[in-house]
Amino acid sequence: MPSLFTKIVKGEIPCHKIAEDENYLAFLDIRPINPGHTLVITKKEVDYIFEVDDPLLAGLLLFAKKVARKIEKSVECKRIGIMVAGLEIPHCHVHLVPIKSVGDLNFANAKQAESAELAKIAEKIRQA
Amino acid sequence: MPSLFTKIVKGEIPCHKIAEDENYLAFLDIRPINPGHTLVITKKEVDYIFEVDDPLLAGLLLFAKKVARKIEKSVECKRIGIMVAGLEIPHCHVHLVPIKSVGDLNFANAKQAESAELAKIAEKIRQA
Repeated sequence: MPSLFTKIVKGEIPCHKIAEDENYLAFLDIRPINPGHTLVITKKEVDYIFEVDDPLLAGLLLFAKKVARKIEKSVECKRIGIMVAGLEIPHCHVHLVPIKSVGDLNFANAKQAESAELAKIAEKIRQA
Repeated sequence: MPSLFTKIVKGEIPCHKIAEDENYLAFLDIRPINPGHTLVITKKEVDYIFEVDDPLLAGLLLFAKKVARKIEKSVECKRIGIMVAGLEIPHCHVHLVPIKSVGDLNFANAKQAESAELAKIAEKIRQA
């Protein structure tokens, strides 16, 4: 069965898209830790980040860097932090989290966001 | 003034080394969240991960992947999680944290470890 994220890649489930290329997709987390919290995924469905093949893994942070630059310009933060856990959805994804302090990097801080609010933030980041 | 991590790269401050190549160094965090918690740094002193130049950034996760494989074989965990905050030491570093649950990824869980214990774990990971 395809993962939730593969369904998003295929457009079967909608997302608040930030950026996309041949290999990667970035979209807002619907349970953000802070506004602008974005997921970067490989389009290829691989469960564990350290099982992603080398060429695809090498490009992952390069794609994330471009996305992080856009997020930084769009929301208030000191910088963009990174978290990868991967125990819940078996499809490689990197959390890009705008942070003001180290304590922000904690999934216990995640809260469901309104779709209208997410749409507004996504538009702002895309335009950045 | 050189960063704490540049001093470690130069051997001016000791570390529990896990692996090293021309561009990257991996060593145990002395305040681990879980046993085996490792820092992967660029030898080049760059403050912010998303300011690291593209070729060096592309290789960072490839180096981390090799290190993660060794950690997985050496400590009890479900997988290796990743955290990058970078607000405290202005020298790019990736936390590789052996995790059993998503809640492990929280710097509030970090605790000072005994040097003898770290030495034992480092040796086990190097041999893996």
